[in-house]
Amino acid sequence: MADAGALDALVQALRILPGVGIKSAQRMAFHLLQRDRAGAGQLALALQTAATSVRHCERCHTFTEAPVCATCLDPARDRARLCVVETPADQAAMERTGAYAGLYFVLMGRLSPLDGVGPKEIGLTQLIERACDGQVQEVILATGFTAEGEATAHAISEALKRRGLHVTRLARGVPVGSELEYVDLGTIAHALVDRR
Amino acid sequence: MADAGALDALVQALRILPGVGIKSAQRMAFHLLQRDRAGAGQLALALQTAATSVRHCERCHTFTEAPVCATCLDPARDRARLCVVETPADQAAMERTGAYAGLYFVLMGRLSPLDGVGPKEIGLTQLIERACDGQVQEVILATGFTAEGEATAHAISEALKRRGLHVTRLARGVPVGSELEYVDLGTIAHALVDRR
Repeated sequence: MADAGALDALVQALRILPGVGIKSAQRMAFHLLQRDRAGAGQLALALQTAATSVRHCERCHTFTEAPVCATCLDPARDRARLCVVETPADQAAMERTGAYAGLYFVLMGRLSPLDGVGPKEIGLTQLIERACDGQVQEVILATGFTAEGEATAHAISEALKRRGLHVTRLARGVPVGSELEYVDLGTIAHALVDRR
Repeated sequence: MADAGALDALVQALRILPGVGIKSAQRMAFHLLQRDRAGAGQLALALQTAATSVRHCERCHTFTEAPVCATCLDPARDRARLCVVETPADQAAMERTGAYAGLYFVLMGRLSPLDGVGPKEIGLTQLIERACDGQVQEVILATGFTAEGEATAHAISEALKRRGLHVTRLARGVPVGSELEYVDLGTIAHALVDRR
């Protein structure tokens, strides 16, 4: 592949994708050029379109092409409840449950000091501003139950409680459909403490 | 993500990459839009450039931007030897050994009837034409040692031998640096049969 500058450039460009190393990038480039050139063109177009037209919702910070997203504009939504999630994918998961009718705030990440992600990067200031609009009565923290997700929830909780807001967290407990025997001990302990 | 048509389009477009499912595609789209829009633009450009400018070498069928690749044009190469490999990546591996000075023919695949890859798709006709140019004295089969690679080597070998060409195959044997105790039995058996 010594003289294929465009091929090498493509392999290098594919490596910016998360989880793609040199071997995967070569395989992808090879697949696209050999079997799916039309797909490569579509992907190029989709990348350009998304990079120019997708922006953040002014209110909830999720991805949208309008200034304010459809969820924030929906008059049927309960404006007294604000659910804080890490990513638009998490928001989509919450929506699929059909159990939540309030609004969202999407952090677009979680606190991870080692990766240079601090309170500023996850938009803590904007979240506080959003939560203190006078309509929000309860902030539901739905960040992940990983170490970083918990740290993020803790930081947000402290900041909001200081401003007199009612803050709750998704319940920890035994997942639906699981047998106790196979559930990890930390989860059972939490489910026991939080019993109702 | 209900109203982000461009985002959904990007996620769908990313799924054409081999080994990328819906979750990986979402992660990639999210990463690009949130952290690396410049990279997304570069990737789009690299895809377009490669899809339009990369083609196959007229002689060896590898990827190149010129009608004939630099390897085929190199006057220092031994024109009596032709090495048959599956992919440009395999060709690059052969080159890195520094042990081969002949020319190549790149199949751009291997026989795989279940995936619709037959003799026509791997360019068997072109290979026979290329090998019967009067200069080639030995065809070295360097397809993989998988079931499909072996089948490909067998089919090519039969076709070329019928035309009176001298066909060889890379040696099977114990990998350099390995202890016999940990080498699989098939490999040891082959190394024993092919001892020298």
